Amino acid sequence: MGGRVTVVGLGPGRADWCLPAVTERLLAATDLVGYGPYLDLVPVATAARRHPSDNRVEADRARHALALAAEGADVVVVSSGDPGVFAMASAVMEALDRAPGDHGDVEVEVLPGITAAQALASRVGAPLGHDFCVISLSDVLKPWEVIERRLSAAAGADFVIALYNPQSRHRPWQLDRAVEVLRRHRADETPVAVGKQLGRPGESVRVVTLAALDPADVDMGTVLVVGSSTTRVLAHRPLASSLYTPRRYES
Amino acid sequence: MGGRVTVVGLGPGRADWCLPAVTERLLAATDLVGYGPYLDLVPVATAARRHPSDNRVEADRARHALALAAEGADVVVVSSGDPGVFAMASAVMEALDRAPGDHGDVEVEVLPGITAAQALASRVGAPLGHDFCVISLSDVLKPWEVIERRLSAAAGADFVIALYNPQSRHRPWQLDRAVEVLRRHRADETPVAVGKQLGRPGESVRVVTLAALDPADVDMGTVLVVGSSTTRVLAHRPLASSLYTPRRYES
Repeated sequence: MGGRVTVVGLGPGRADWCLPAVTERLLAATDLVGYGPYLDLVPVATAARRHPSDNRVEADRARHALALAAEGADVVVVSSGDPGVFAMASAVMEALDRAPGDHGDVEVEVLPGITAAQALASRVGAPLGHDFCVISLSDVLKPWEVIERRLSAAAGADFVIALYNPQSRHRPWQLDRAVEVLRRHRADETPVAVGKQLGRPGESVRVVTLAALDPADVDMGTVLVVGSSTTRVLAHRPLASSLYTPRRYES
Repeated sequence: MGGRVTVVGLGPGRADWCLPAVTERLLAATDLVGYGPYLDLVPVATAARRHPSDNRVEADRARHALALAAEGADVVVVSSGDPGVFAMASAVMEALDRAPGDHGDVEVEVLPGITAAQALASRVGAPLGHDFCVISLSDVLKPWEVIERRLSAAAGADFVIALYNPQSRHRPWQLDRAVEVLRRHRADETPVAVGKQLGRPGESVRVVTLAALDPADVDMGTVLVVGSSTTRVLAHRPLASSLYTPRRYES
């Protein structure tokens, strides 16, 4: 009687950046669960029941998906980007973890997607061509001290750094503070790629310097890739091939 | 007269994990350039001329692609995984950087793909659900001291850590040494996901402990995801939903 929960990522929003394996699962689903605006991005027509929910209710959404599957439904939980990166896959796993007896016969599977840092990187060249870190600046679920320690460690060891959830109305000072930490280790002219609404109407991509990065120009839908000391800007090239981190590293 | 170079990633190998945008570009290409075995993975039939090359000649391959495009060809450079992550996108950008006058009218674009760490993560649940780092253990193009410093910084700040190129015939001791560094910061029972030949015939995925990880069982086609202190194993679940890193972090 146990059904199935598949947690999928649509990628950044463009239908042609969504895996065929994901499209296939969306077409087979009896129920789609997700944040309302993400359900609106589903790139195929399907007769599945839709269960849109608000933002920031990941745990409720995960329990709802598992409960539907426990009744036999073929549920797809829809994330944008990669569901495994700061998204719904962890929330579903956590719900399994908290109620181990309840979902024994529900099959749970995750299908990956293109995450925002990859989408942004591909828009400007190859800034993630060498060792990198991915850090969420949201201190809703972790203490700010942990974030600052990670920023400092990553910058000190000269990683390229992708920053997710850089700021929001409720978290207005975090990016300023993060830039302050990064600037202890990185030169003013360090290139930073700034991507907004990637793959969606209103997409904007720019490369600025760390010194010129204006937090007022960054919102919750923005992702940043901060270069390492070796990341290079090709001034003579169009934006799509203007930034890269060499494969070779000389210390 | 300038043609185009598109650097694409096929993902880990399965046709249904390759972006439709990549398939479309492969179908339009006049010339395909890449490491021979990757060209064999191209998931569509195309009449394009094929230019297979050996492994570890990335710079030659990049120059070749740009030279073909300078003559007007529509060239696709084929990587596995994401071409922007330790792959051909940086090599092509580097070739542009080294000969800035030669390729002014060649359009260069990168399309992303599912990289090995994402593929592995999705096979076991959601180990990349919290801040993580991606590190190549290859010291062919960077000094080992840099790698060790990064491993130590990432482990010290409690990142989840994905390890690429963990070892090869020519680099037999690197993974042993890396595990030694990680174990200074991580408990013996830290879970490690081990993926081989992901998305290809002979795929193997396992979750072991850091103490039990056997470097003899790891080759160049293996990727590893080492958990943070908060990564959890669900012993009662099948492999596909057995490992995750919670979104919440309490220090």
